Amino acid sequence: MMFASDNWAGACPQVQRALADLGPDVAPAYGGDALSAAVNARLSEIFETPVESLMMATGSAANALALAHFAKPGGITLAHKNAHVMVDEYNGPERVSPGLKILGLSGHAGKLTTDGLGHVLQQFPDGVSRQGRLTCLSLTQATELGQSYTPAEISALAKLAKQQIGLGVHMDGARLANAITHLNCTPADVTWRAGVDCLSLGFTKNGAWAADLLIFFEGQSSVEAGYIRKQMGQNFSKPRFMAAQILAMLEDETWLKNAEHANQQAANLANGLAACDKCSVPLMPQSNEVFAYFEANDIERLQKAGASFYPWPDEDIPDDLKQADKTLMRLVCSFATCSKDVEVFLTQLGQSPHIKG
Amino acid sequence: MMFASDNWAGACPQVQRALADLGPDVAPAYGGDALSAAVNARLSEIFETPVESLMMATGSAANALALAHFAKPGGITLAHKNAHVMVDEYNGPERVSPGLKILGLSGHAGKLTTDGLGHVLQQFPDGVSRQGRLTCLSLTQATELGQSYTPAEISALAKLAKQQIGLGVHMDGARLANAITHLNCTPADVTWRAGVDCLSLGFTKNGAWAADLLIFFEGQSSVEAGYIRKQMGQNFSKPRFMAAQILAMLEDETWLKNAEHANQQAANLANGLAACDKCSVPLMPQSNEVFAYFEANDIERLQKAGASFYPWPDEDIPDDLKQADKTLMRLVCSFATCSKDVEVFLTQLGQSPHIKG
Amino acid sequence: MMFASDNWAGACPQVQRALADLGPDVAPAYGGDALSAAVNARLSEIFETPVESLMMATGSAANALALAHFAKPGGITLAHKNAHVMVDEYNGPERVSPGLKILGLSGHAGKLTTDGLGHVLQQFPDGVSRQGRLTCLSLTQATELGQSYTPAEISALAKLAKQQIGLGVHMDGARLANAITHLNCTPADVTWRAGVDCLSLGFTKNGAWAADLLIFFEGQSSVEAGYIRKQMGQNFSKPRFMAAQILAMLEDETWLKNAEHANQQAANLANGLAACDKCSVPLMPQSNEVFAYFEANDIERLQKAGASFYPWPDEDIPDDLKQADKTLMRLVCSFATCSKDVEVFLTQLGQSPHIKG
Amino acid sequence: MMFASDNWAGACPQVQRALADLGPDVAPAYGGDALSAAVNARLSEIFETPVESLMMATGSAANALALAHFAKPGGITLAHKNAHVMVDEYNGPERVSPGLKILGLSGHAGKLTTDGLGHVLQQFPDGVSRQGRLTCLSLTQATELGQSYTPAEISALAKLAKQQIGLGVHMDGARLANAITHLNCTPADVTWRAGVDCLSLGFTKNGAWAADLLIFFEGQSSVEAGYIRKQMGQNFSKPRFMAAQILAMLEDETWLKNAEHANQQAANLANGLAACDKCSVPLMPQSNEVFAYFEANDIERLQKAGASFYPWPDEDIPDDLKQADKTLMRLVCSFATCSKDVEVFLTQLGQSPHIKG
Repeated sequence: MMFASDNWAGACPQVQRALADLGPDVAPAYGGDALSAAVNARLSEIFETPVESLMMATGSAANALALAHFAKPGGITLAHKNAHVMVDEYNGPERVSPGLKILGLSGHAGKLTTDGLGHVLQQFPDGVSRQGRLTCLSLTQATELGQSYTPAEISALAKLAKQQIGLGVHMDGARLANAITHLNCTPADVTWRAGVDCLSLGFTKNGAWAADLLIFFEGQSSVEAGYIRKQMGQNFSKPRFMAAQILAMLEDETWLKNAEHANQQAANLANGLAACDKCSVPLMPQSNEVFAYFEANDIERLQKAGASFYPWPDEDIPDDLKQADKTLMRLVCSFATCSKDVEVFLTQLGQSPHIKG
Repeated sequence: MMFASDNWAGACPQVQRALADLGPDVAPAYGGDALSAAVNARLSEIFETPVESLMMATGSAANALALAHFAKPGGITLAHKNAHVMVDEYNGPERVSPGLKILGLSGHAGKLTTDGLGHVLQQFPDGVSRQGRLTCLSLTQATELGQSYTPAEISALAKLAKQQIGLGVHMDGARLANAITHLNCTPADVTWRAGVDCLSLGFTKNGAWAADLLIFFEGQSSVEAGYIRKQMGQNFSKPRFMAAQILAMLEDETWLKNAEHANQQAANLANGLAACDKCSVPLMPQSNEVFAYFEANDIERLQKAGASFYPWPDEDIPDDLKQADKTLMRLVCSFATCSKDVEVFLTQLGQSPHIKG
Repeated sequence: MMFASDNWAGACPQVQRALADLGPDVAPAYGGDALSAAVNARLSEIFETPVESLMMATGSAANALALAHFAKPGGITLAHKNAHVMVDEYNGPERVSPGLKILGLSGHAGKLTTDGLGHVLQQFPDGVSRQGRLTCLSLTQATELGQSYTPAEISALAKLAKQQIGLGVHMDGARLANAITHLNCTPADVTWRAGVDCLSLGFTKNGAWAADLLIFFEGQSSVEAGYIRKQMGQNFSKPRFMAAQILAMLEDETWLKNAEHANQQAANLANGLAACDKCSVPLMPQSNEVFAYFEANDIERLQKAGASFYPWPDEDIPDDLKQADKTLMRLVCSFATCSKDVEVFLTQLGQSPHIKG
Repeated sequence: MMFASDNWAGACPQVQRALADLGPDVAPAYGGDALSAAVNARLSEIFETPVESLMMATGSAANALALAHFAKPGGITLAHKNAHVMVDEYNGPERVSPGLKILGLSGHAGKLTTDGLGHVLQQFPDGVSRQGRLTCLSLTQATELGQSYTPAEISALAKLAKQQIGLGVHMDGARLANAITHLNCTPADVTWRAGVDCLSLGFTKNGAWAADLLIFFEGQSSVEAGYIRKQMGQNFSKPRFMAAQILAMLEDETWLKNAEHANQQAANLANGLAACDKCSVPLMPQSNEVFAYFEANDIERLQKAGASFYPWPDEDIPDDLKQADKTLMRLVCSFATCSKDVEVFLTQLGQSPHIKG
């Protein structure tokens, strides 16, 4: 009953096999090998457009590099006030890009709105104000609260950001596969076709050991970012161990299948919790994260019974979702979550699970 | 006949097995797992003293973090003018620690001398001058030219750096195992017992996929550096995949055995080249790197025959080793170099190999 | 009728005379002269405690240096969301201290409250959270909306910031003299006695050409900050031209007299506007800044008549002060504002001025 | 007998008068005033080409901004190894431009040569190597050792830097007026006509209190640098006090006349010293700095008699100028140095002065 985070899971069998296939064989360092060379080609197929990419050690690294890619003196990145780049990266983006400020915007369930974005853009005629210069908009897909932007929503936000002042659009896709699966759209639909310029694509939460990417869509070059990556100490000498993980995830749609499994478990869990008198589910999951209000004694009892799940920070709960007498808990499912875990959890809660799939 | 670099090799069998043993099992993220927790304990045994450590994506990252650990406003790091931190990291240390300068010192075969160091220290009474403030001394073991400092040499340099102005002493140990094997000393002898405060210990060149560490010896704390590592996007969510590699390398002295193998191949290669009329070996290897002068036609012929090896940059060749009519080539052996490779290379050169071991 | 800003005024006669007295005479550079040496002694008298100080080119520079003085990896400065360090310095503090984040707090009329501060501190047990580490609290005196914290208010905030997690307390005193004059307290009462550790003290808005200081109270050292100042290109070779301005401002309480004059003109202006049917004054001034709502046609008429005054940015107007049909204008008085300016302005508005003093 | 540095002098009468003429009158802040607006126009006349410029607090600030203007990730600035940007600015450029490295080149008497530059450029084909990317060449005019590059020398260096890899060319002109006067050329000849893109022009050492500029010649824009200047805390609210100094210096060629006076005093001093048995002058001055070897007892006696002059750092003395038994002293003349000072100094040394002019 490990619902603490999807990054508690290990590596999926496909990734394991791919690494096992990599032997002591010698190959050129720093990306000169065949596997590393194959990554861009494979991504270009999947995204239906030519892309460039840079492999990174973590999603935080990919995010910091993306913001650095768009940085300018006095530059301001717009993001949701509870976004990972804003509250979970220990000011890494601000260290990698000295002089960077991230301006946190409000928005229901972790999603920015065109109204909210438009209001802020008005304060920066031509992108400039006494505060600084807007450089890019960063969207998180799926959001920190497990919701997914539709392609139309992303498109509307990106259009607004670009039309007047040509902002770059970055997507933090640590859980992009979960969003794509939920939306039942193509990877292209929800990224570059909707106006995304630069994508942090995460495989680590979804079944790899450590494999994240910063992807540059048409019109963007990875050259300058490649130099910064090197300065960040992220230019792996043997990147084929990372390329192998990525190719394994992309092969036979493993990344989407893993996400589909995690989403389904999350849906089952949410449905069970919503049916429970003692719980309430303020937002039905649109990815692999479930948010539900629990009573204190239930939390204690479940944790004693071996369930790992944590309260969501108070300051990150939107006012309209606040509930005074209970505690908002986050439960995250992964490729490794099994139906049994969900069943036992719900049963422990005194709820008979009705689970499909 | 891959002698281009030791980082062209893949992972050694022990590392491969360790990764294969890691399944999809769930464990706490960000170092809360058992393997990650075991790393410091294991290193403390091997170094015979309590240590703290931080796992990093690359050796460059570990070096940048080490220099950041010692950084101060106006801070100057002393290093050999051809050291990796000086010429191979694309100013990464200077980006991670804004306002950092690395002052390059001369010294035969990549080794600093107490004379040379003393001369520079005189320019900084109490560690301060109009130029800035000295913060640390960084030594590379083995050096860029394949030589190894003896414990006594390190001790003399560290003592000089510390006694007057309390400089920190960092060791870039990307090839430390090779030096230890050559010197036939303990890991402790050549590090903290000789005055090293902070060690970049690399396993990647020596048989891992990606596993580097910054180790803090007694009197140094990893706490502040841990925050900086997070900002560098190097706080892995599943570090047990890295811990597993490290523990496998340390188990049963695999790291030293791998190094011993590489050193022996290098010695065989160097001996063969030294015995060859058309080559000259200006420095006998004290690790796994061979430097030898070749005639242009031999280089061309060997490369056509499939040998990969590269010229050493002119600007990094010490004046006393320069030889006008030939080209200085670097040949690096690794755990994966087999005797056959060395034999064939020497035979191609028209030299009958006499190889021991 | 120049009410655009107090930094539109030139230098006051006392500063002019002091500069005129400085001839071509030779004196040691970089602070070795007698005037520069006298600054700390004079400030120590005025603040009734030994202080150290560093002269800076601008108030923004002093603020950036203050935040750098308290900076740590992953460090977060707390400030009002409309504070100068937050919205007016083009991310200068974030450039000088790479990896710095400034967290903007709400609070009526530019003033932080213990409730608001306490709420944020709860999110950082022991000063640390997943977001980063709190390093200091920055208070603006007088605030951006012309209000002044009482010594008791500062003391309560500083106590809260210090008692649990030992935050540093910085005061941005670009208009400190105006606040002191309004509060009728001593410089000590409203700074170190109330818990302020580090003070940006501005003379430029109050009658100097360019003279700002960062003052370090007991327990704080200026040494490290001095090195950073040098890196910022602010180590003047002839600082006596700046010291002369500062000493002239401090001599015979010129700084307080200038502030008193400016405050009185602001009070007269505010009283006149408050008595005017077409205007409203949502906050009576507690320094030299007047905020008043005007009708659009009045603004246009007055500006045509030569009055310079500007609207306050919408996003910086607290919700409880918002007024839909009118425009909030800021009018700033300085030592150079004469009664005639205020009278003519009010008369133009169709208001007969009743002015005291 | 103040020969310690030209920045020990105060302000020249013309600057004093200009400041005295500036009263308490009100004018728009941040450069909206008439004097600030006149600076670019006046500089454009003097340099015979349209220029943009940014006023700065110090020459170090202007230099740091210039290097930031040309900075790129992994960027390397080429400069003489004893240049001010290399050894006297406490790594300020490296702080303002995180990730910057300054590579110090050798060259007689502080002057780079096309041979030396060409040798380094060869290590960076297309401007790039494993070390990083070349961004600009910084030349100091007059050099740290008081020598002046001829327009032809600058032109040859700039051509070399530009033709292959398009490096920017920066000139640190803290003593440009002294060089111009010595060379008897126009300001244009020795700057943009010779290929200089960006000029730090210093008035502080030459008769102002604090007035330095970064000038951008054709093809360069000051816009981005302007944002960085703001982040450096150098956007003065009342820049007319600085503009007034600059305009006074440029009016009626005061800047060149002051330099001519200083150069003449330096020439007189050097001639006197060269004629003295106990001294030797290894380089005849080509600006206002005299370098001469003295015996220890003479130094002591002269300092006791009130002369201020300092030894030149050992590490900055070129090998070919080294003289074992004596001490190399630097003596700097300024607009404020009077003939009497030189005469008395030489007389004290037991040398009868024969001085012209």
